[in-house]
Amino acid sequence: MTQTTIEAYIEQNKERFLEELKTFLRIPSVSTDPAQHDEVKRCAQWVHDHLKGIGMETVEIHKTGGHPIVYAEHCKHPGKPTVLLYGHYDVQPPEPLEMWHSPPFEPTIRDGKIFARGATDDKGQVFAHMKGIETLFAVNGELPVNLKILIEGEEEVGSVHLDGWVSEHVEKLACDSVVISDSSMYAPGIPAITYGLRGLMYCEIKVTGPGHDLHSGLYGGAVPNPINALARLIATLHDDQGRVQVPGFYDRVLELEASEREAFAQLPYEKESFLEEVNASDTAGEEGFTTLERIWGRPTLDCNGIWGGFMGKGAKTVIPSEACAKISCRLVADQDPEDVAALLEDYLRAQAPPSIKLDFKVFHGGRPIVVSRDNSTVQAACRALERSWGAQTVFIRSGGSIPVVATFTQLLKVPSVLVGLGLADDRLHSPNEKFDLENFFKGVQTSAYFYGEV
Amino acid sequence: MTQTTIEAYIEQNKERFLEELKTFLRIPSVSTDPAQHDEVKRCAQWVHDHLKGIGMETVEIHKTGGHPIVYAEHCKHPGKPTVLLYGHYDVQPPEPLEMWHSPPFEPTIRDGKIFARGATDDKGQVFAHMKGIETLFAVNGELPVNLKILIEGEEEVGSVHLDGWVSEHVEKLACDSVVISDSSMYAPGIPAITYGLRGLMYCEIKVTGPGHDLHSGLYGGAVPNPINALARLIATLHDDQGRVQVPGFYDRVLELEASEREAFAQLPYEKESFLEEVNASDTAGEEGFTTLERIWGRPTLDCNGIWGGFMGKGAKTVIPSEACAKISCRLVADQDPEDVAALLEDYLRAQAPPSIKLDFKVFHGGRPIVVSRDNSTVQAACRALERSWGAQTVFIRSGGSIPVVATFTQLLKVPSVLVGLGLADDRLHSPNEKFDLENFFKGVQTSAYFYGEV
Repeated sequence: MTQTTIEAYIEQNKERFLEELKTFLRIPSVSTDPAQHDEVKRCAQWVHDHLKGIGMETVEIHKTGGHPIVYAEHCKHPGKPTVLLYGHYDVQPPEPLEMWHSPPFEPTIRDGKIFARGATDDKGQVFAHMKGIETLFAVNGELPVNLKILIEGEEEVGSVHLDGWVSEHVEKLACDSVVISDSSMYAPGIPAITYGLRGLMYCEIKVTGPGHDLHSGLYGGAVPNPINALARLIATLHDDQGRVQVPGFYDRVLELEASEREAFAQLPYEKESFLEEVNASDTAGEEGFTTLERIWGRPTLDCNGIWGGFMGKGAKTVIPSEACAKISCRLVADQDPEDVAALLEDYLRAQAPPSIKLDFKVFHGGRPIVVSRDNSTVQAACRALERSWGAQTVFIRSGGSIPVVATFTQLLKVPSVLVGLGLADDRLHSPNEKFDLENFFKGVQTSAYFYGEV
Repeated sequence: MTQTTIEAYIEQNKERFLEELKTFLRIPSVSTDPAQHDEVKRCAQWVHDHLKGIGMETVEIHKTGGHPIVYAEHCKHPGKPTVLLYGHYDVQPPEPLEMWHSPPFEPTIRDGKIFARGATDDKGQVFAHMKGIETLFAVNGELPVNLKILIEGEEEVGSVHLDGWVSEHVEKLACDSVVISDSSMYAPGIPAITYGLRGLMYCEIKVTGPGHDLHSGLYGGAVPNPINALARLIATLHDDQGRVQVPGFYDRVLELEASEREAFAQLPYEKESFLEEVNASDTAGEEGFTTLERIWGRPTLDCNGIWGGFMGKGAKTVIPSEACAKISCRLVADQDPEDVAALLEDYLRAQAPPSIKLDFKVFHGGRPIVVSRDNSTVQAACRALERSWGAQTVFIRSGGSIPVVATFTQLLKVPSVLVGLGLADDRLHSPNEKFDLENFFKGVQTSAYFYGEV
């Protein structure tokens, strides 16, 4: 096997790869839509058959309480490392349909990009791995590593049955590392490995003043107003420097290392294009940190929703009984969601005036993750990306959460390597989702190189 | 004419008065409901005919852009004072119908109370005056004052056409004082004259952060969050002592006089029953003032509504583009609604961080009113109430607004006397509105005495 041979095989089979990807993308495997549950099942079967077809020895479909999990194994080298590839075959709903320039489940190529729901998230990226693996089988007659593949059908509905299934199959899934391609490169032409993810704490608070709505003329000024009280509570959550004022909030935060801050500072970043992207007049946040540091390496506290009283047109002079807010914190390693929820609740209760009643409800959480960058799988992925793109791989973090990474960390005790093959403008979850064909084919290469490098 | 004669006439005609009141209450004159517009018209005609029937010389129905105004006049004493009686014959919608123990437009007497929509607000109180006037004609053969009567049909929809009509008929309406019975006694057995009303400034603010909703993971911590920003703005509006922090807000406030505070302190008031009434665990408000002082004599700033971001069930990790709040101030003499709106807008703009956009919209306002308690009409009303109830009349204020009072003050340049004949528990605007028969008949007496005393 040489690099040329891998490249030649991919070059010779480009058209077929694309046609197969289109077939995969045509299946409307919308996991949240009960009307499409048969299609989700058909999609699992298609993935099963395709994995069998490219040469995987064992391929199974596992029923869960929801959509099936496709599992495959090809482990021929007892002494060599074992890699678990994770991905998902389900997709987001395509709505609003009228915003699509071509139908979401009729994959269409325009300007060197393939447009379809699932083009990058995650069918396109999973399929790049399938074609990388096929290439290795074809060029080499065998895989250079022990490979396990887990492709689920419920990622877009919160992977509801995945944790249970993984914990029942810990021995089956035993491996040295997990590889996931369900994210993006840093920028066009700049390959990246994501080594940090933020966690999440999400809660709802309700402030009750009077037991029923009151006339603001007849009572205003003498009774607790729950909206004003809620606003005051929210305002106490940050100081003027944008720091969260909940005592203990930062205690478990692993501060960004000087080397990380230096590396982030080297990355191309234009404030103007960021402001254009978010359509805001200025950035905001914790003083003393750059925008990338704020998003990748600092915990946050944001209100995600607020409501209470009269929300219609015009004027109604009511003092409402209740006001509510949704509040979430993005967490960084080693913060713990339950711990942060408890700190927040204690603080809010201490700040609340005695004339109001405060309810506090926690929804769900996710743990933050930082993967060591010295890990050999990370290094292999790094080299594979550099060989494909002819450019240096950068190490980045993401401000978002990928809960499955915490699942693998906790249950399988192995690190996950996040090798994003997409681009930031791929419009995941939005109309006109796309995957650049260059990214797809470089993804196939990267995959083939990666399993060779591990 | 003697007191006995007035009382005797009322006593002899009780049953007929009640039957006539029932006829008045049976007309579903719901001004806001297009389906009832013919009934509103029929009600105006009924009022017209009734005023004619009791002896008023001139009675007219005036068309407006909306519902008609009934106007009557009886001015036989060039040298004597002229009183203008104001009231309204339209009523609030009766919904929710299922909450009524007897149908809203089938007046029913239970436990010495008459239940119907409009029983006190304002048909019952207006009708007490009609019967008082009838009594004077019957007992005396003539009225002791010059009397003008204006009964409108749009009070429950904001008196939309009243200001225009009054300003076109300033000469016709020329008088020495206005009497209005559209409010309550202080408590059962304690007659009251309301000499102060709060005014109103009502506005809506909108805070815009990013130009579109953003993912809280991918952007949280680096972009302005409009909900957090709105909460911080609202929190800056009061200090820890409950005082409004908008500079200049209190500049034009006429402070309560020592005599007023003393008089309020003499009134029966139980904190426990107030808390039961509002169903709250404690009162709240500006430090240094009692509950009655806060409601009657101090300006306020209350949020009446707030909304933004995700308000559904569960969790959505969004940083919304916008958040809005409705904010109103109850004002006391001599505050000016436009002036207060401008002060508030300036303050909010000064407090807003540069990363957000702030929109400020004023809805409508109403001027606060304080009527001199030395006024001869006030004194006449005071004596009339005391003769009817055999109890001392107290001077109170109301925290609410009656915009028509400001109309008369501004356009006719005369004081209004607010003689409430109802009770606080009459359930105005709610199901099972009622008028105690004792209050109705004492109201007829009060009216007859009042026109004699002026």
